[in-house]
Amino acid sequence: MEAFPAATPAASLVFTTVLSQGPLSRVELSRRTGLSSAAVTKAVRPLMAAGYFVEAADESAPPAVGRPANPVRVDGGRALFIGVKVTADEVIAVLADLCCRIRLARHVPLTAREPGAVIAVIAELTAELRTEAEGFGVPVQGLAVAVSGDVDRAAGVVRYSPFLDWRDIALAELTTAVTGLPATVDNDVRALTVAEQWFGAGVGLSNFALVTVGAGIGCGLVVNGRVVSGAHGVAGEIGHLSIDPRGPLCHCGNHGCVEAIASDSAIVRRIERDTGEPLAGPAQALELAHGGSPVAREAYADAGAAIGRAIGSVVNLLGPERVIISGEGLAAYDLFAAQIKEAFSATAFSTADQCDVITRPLAFEEWARGAAATAIQTFIGSDTF
Amino acid sequence: MEAFPAATPAASLVFTTVLSQGPLSRVELSRRTGLSSAAVTKAVRPLMAAGYFVEAADESAPPAVGRPANPVRVDGGRALFIGVKVTADEVIAVLADLCCRIRLARHVPLTAREPGAVIAVIAELTAELRTEAEGFGVPVQGLAVAVSGDVDRAAGVVRYSPFLDWRDIALAELTTAVTGLPATVDNDVRALTVAEQWFGAGVGLSNFALVTVGAGIGCGLVVNGRVVSGAHGVAGEIGHLSIDPRGPLCHCGNHGCVEAIASDSAIVRRIERDTGEPLAGPAQALELAHGGSPVAREAYADAGAAIGRAIGSVVNLLGPERVIISGEGLAAYDLFAAQIKEAFSATAFSTADQCDVITRPLAFEEWARGAAATAIQTFIGSDTF
Repeated sequence: MEAFPAATPAASLVFTTVLSQGPLSRVELSRRTGLSSAAVTKAVRPLMAAGYFVEAADESAPPAVGRPANPVRVDGGRALFIGVKVTADEVIAVLADLCCRIRLARHVPLTAREPGAVIAVIAELTAELRTEAEGFGVPVQGLAVAVSGDVDRAAGVVRYSPFLDWRDIALAELTTAVTGLPATVDNDVRALTVAEQWFGAGVGLSNFALVTVGAGIGCGLVVNGRVVSGAHGVAGEIGHLSIDPRGPLCHCGNHGCVEAIASDSAIVRRIERDTGEPLAGPAQALELAHGGSPVAREAYADAGAAIGRAIGSVVNLLGPERVIISGEGLAAYDLFAAQIKEAFSATAFSTADQCDVITRPLAFEEWARGAAATAIQTFIGSDTF
Repeated sequence: MEAFPAATPAASLVFTTVLSQGPLSRVELSRRTGLSSAAVTKAVRPLMAAGYFVEAADESAPPAVGRPANPVRVDGGRALFIGVKVTADEVIAVLADLCCRIRLARHVPLTAREPGAVIAVIAELTAELRTEAEGFGVPVQGLAVAVSGDVDRAAGVVRYSPFLDWRDIALAELTTAVTGLPATVDNDVRALTVAEQWFGAGVGLSNFALVTVGAGIGCGLVVNGRVVSGAHGVAGEIGHLSIDPRGPLCHCGNHGCVEAIASDSAIVRRIERDTGEPLAGPAQALELAHGGSPVAREAYADAGAAIGRAIGSVVNLLGPERVIISGEGLAAYDLFAAQIKEAFSATAFSTADQCDVITRPLAFEEWARGAAATAIQTFIGSDTF
């Protein structure tokens, strides 16, 4: 693979600033990064020479040759990456450019969840996307896989993924072995957080949280401009904040976790318990609630209150500028939005309630794009600074 | 005041690394900071020239003239700082050197809590300590005041301090006006966290939490090497994590906050309610529990469980390497240590329970020393990087 020409913390900062906020003039880059204009010039030059940066024509200015005041932007087409998200049911792979724009997406249903079977699907999708990439005339520089659970990115190991029932799988090494590409593995919510930080609702923010609701309740945190990973691989486990000592038993063994109240399966179990009738799954729960079932509506209302109180805890501890709520659970948002807001406002201490809480629907392909963002991180070396 | 000769992020990093981990050789400094040896040499030179760094004699090596391999250390006596902690009852001021060693400490009881009265006491103590400082032949370079509550350090304003009943007091400006010294103001728990990060149980850790128990329940957080301040001035409000929706009403208006269960006054109220008899204060509550009163012992046990669950929440969200428990509430530690540990272990998700939870008694003077640490931060400019 090609070496990326930004091997210092300053160069990496310049690149990621242009990547997420460009086009930017050198003067503006100096202002936003806090680097001297000499340091900016030094960082920009090799990135221009290697074609990662290009001059962005300033339409408002008269044309001039070699104007150094022209803003620079990243040439997205300069490199391609593959991002893969593995769910319990399918593998989603995207081919993304250096600006993390999705060029192609593929979905393949999973028939078996053993690591070997999943890696075979990843290998097949990768081969397919690389063939397509040839059409763009640009090499694929790296691949990343995002899965839910405890993932040790530095070691490239999935420590424990409950949905896949995997323990201590050296996924990065195994994936590189079958694809020949440098591989990154990360927790899926953290990967989505990287994409939001660089290209989504977190651009320009030093402190924000991404809360995902649905099959599980997850959270990605950016503090002082960096995604939080935790010293022991665990971080952002908002689903296991214990908010009610008399609440339902969680699969983690504790009582009253947010996930035991507000996950899709917790809502289904609660409705089954209160109606005494079995449900086919979350879709039926949603249908019942939208159809006006008081039992189903109460289950969603309580789920909303649990999520709102958990967001209040995050805000009281970290004081983020913004909380972004996403995940497939947003399909039920009309059923619990009011309760989320009410519980958040009641829990947030003092000025913490000034935090901007927004919702942002993100399709499953966006999670694969999150994986691609981590592959870009690895390629440009920003994860090491 | 003197200008400090480390005006770049790299120089600041070199200084703070030697300050908290020195003496260190230049080779070791390069390794720990990730800077090139040329960058380390460039940062060290002006600090040596100005007398902030001195060569630390390497006793194991034969004497040699100008050996550049000698480790360097900070000359603590090169500058002095004043740190002030304001409690509801007294003002504690310390004179500390550049290595944050306490040279002198003074306590003055507070007879009035109005800002004017408190600032007059601070002015008096400062004048006294500066006179003493003349005996050391070193000027006082700055002063810092730590108070509990919402403090906007960047603006120098105490937004709200419940114990003092202050709102929007421009404390930094007012203190500079009466002392002529550059003044820093910060939340007291955050100030103590800075001292722990540089000189205490947080040295060398990128991620840790300091939890203080007593009159209030507070928390200072270090994430990716930096103290968390929060976008809206609120952060580390562990006392207002809501852990029981049916719990007692908190002064913040919410139910079941940790502080409504585990603060000194909450424990007193609980024992008064259960015995029907008034208590003189926390000292009497402690005495009752140590004397074997089942009601008092249960109040402390429930307080411990609340603190343990709150620590579990911090650990699930941030995955710190260590949690340090301190504060005057440690006097009751034998009464709730087991419950803290048990509740923490039950709440911590997966490998998060590998986090090292320790206790560390810190006298009130140490809180004033925390303030002095923030004055040092301001002087060396490390708060701006």
